[in-house]
Amino acid sequence: MTEDLTIWTYDWVPEGPRGFVRDLRLRWAAEEAGLGYDVGTVPFGDQPRSHLDRQPFGQVPFLTDGEITLFESGACLLYLARKSDILMPRTARGEAETLQWVVAALNSIEMVSVPWWFLGLSGDRENGLSGWLDSRLAHIEAILRERAWLVDDRFTAADLLMADVLRVPAIRARGDRPATEAYIQRLVARPAFKKAHADQLAHFAAADESRARR
Amino acid sequence: MTEDLTIWTYDWVPEGPRGFVRDLRLRWAAEEAGLGYDVGTVPFGDQPRSHLDRQPFGQVPFLTDGEITLFESGACLLYLARKSDILMPRTARGEAETLQWVVAALNSIEMVSVPWWFLGLSGDRENGLSGWLDSRLAHIEAILRERAWLVDDRFTAADLLMADVLRVPAIRARGDRPATEAYIQRLVARPAFKKAHADQLAHFAAADESRARR
Repeated sequence: MTEDLTIWTYDWVPEGPRGFVRDLRLRWAAEEAGLGYDVGTVPFGDQPRSHLDRQPFGQVPFLTDGEITLFESGACLLYLARKSDILMPRTARGEAETLQWVVAALNSIEMVSVPWWFLGLSGDRENGLSGWLDSRLAHIEAILRERAWLVDDRFTAADLLMADVLRVPAIRARGDRPATEAYIQRLVARPAFKKAHADQLAHFAAADESRARR
Repeated sequence: MTEDLTIWTYDWVPEGPRGFVRDLRLRWAAEEAGLGYDVGTVPFGDQPRSHLDRQPFGQVPFLTDGEITLFESGACLLYLARKSDILMPRTARGEAETLQWVVAALNSIEMVSVPWWFLGLSGDRENGLSGWLDSRLAHIEAILRERAWLVDDRFTAADLLMADVLRVPAIRARGDRPATEAYIQRLVARPAFKKAHADQLAHFAAADESRARR
């Protein structure tokens, strides 16, 4: 148990992003590893100095753990992974490959999928990044056809992140990629994901009620 | 010295990307840390199975180090950083913050700047990602106005990567950001960067000569 661990997220967000705010990655990791944690909040919409001091891009999540304050969900995930071999094998090769696939999810998939999704907010899912996205998704499909897990034939933080990156509805709706779809379904069926997801929804629902009472 | 360390890159690339192929990040890190290394090559343009087995997205760089094979330049950089405290402090806080800023360079800056650059290849530097890019660059400028280095008031792998991400000419030409420009100039003036950069240019120039002799 890490009694001091706090995962920071927004105090409230609109309906759209609920279930996808990236504090979920850290909640999920902590649930998998059995790490105790509190949830702290920063105001949505404005960025007071106390928020920017801890997350200079004005985003969430970040975590605090004793004297450590850390932002970037991918960095926080790797930080938590070093606390538990449930999240990352303790071999040099297992650690290196977990690191590799975490960075691949961030820098080979999300680097294309998030800007593609952003451009698509205007309604056009066919944009200047569509071909690049399809190519990256085809590479991942080929990889997942050959293996159930990214590292060491077991669940790691790399699968947690890759599944979270790939489970965005607009991306899942893109083409027929059965190995990827089976992978996502297997990952989001894990009790730790379900708990983290339900807890995030409950956190924002409670914020709705608190706003309604004001 | 790590006698087994090999940094893998293309056997040849056109003029455009020379000086920016990402093997430079690993050469630079190895030069800073005094790690010995060989340079291996894979064919540019086609992707034989032997390449895809080691880099499933068909990209470079990747590294081999004894039994370890690792891709994603960010992951390779963090892997090398654990070999030398020149690249990363050996305190829990210093390690966590180096990790945080490496991921920030990959997932908060490059995630916007690389797709923005890609969309701009058609000639239009004002595209659907321009506003987002400018916002991220403004955040980085505010950070670099207040500090010379990202972690612990000293050079780390985080500065190496952030400077490499920011030194792309199209990004440097975007707006007046004096703290960022001074930061880049300070980083690329380091002897280890100059050696790595010159070595990459020489590597591809030698490939030109070899092609001309065929």
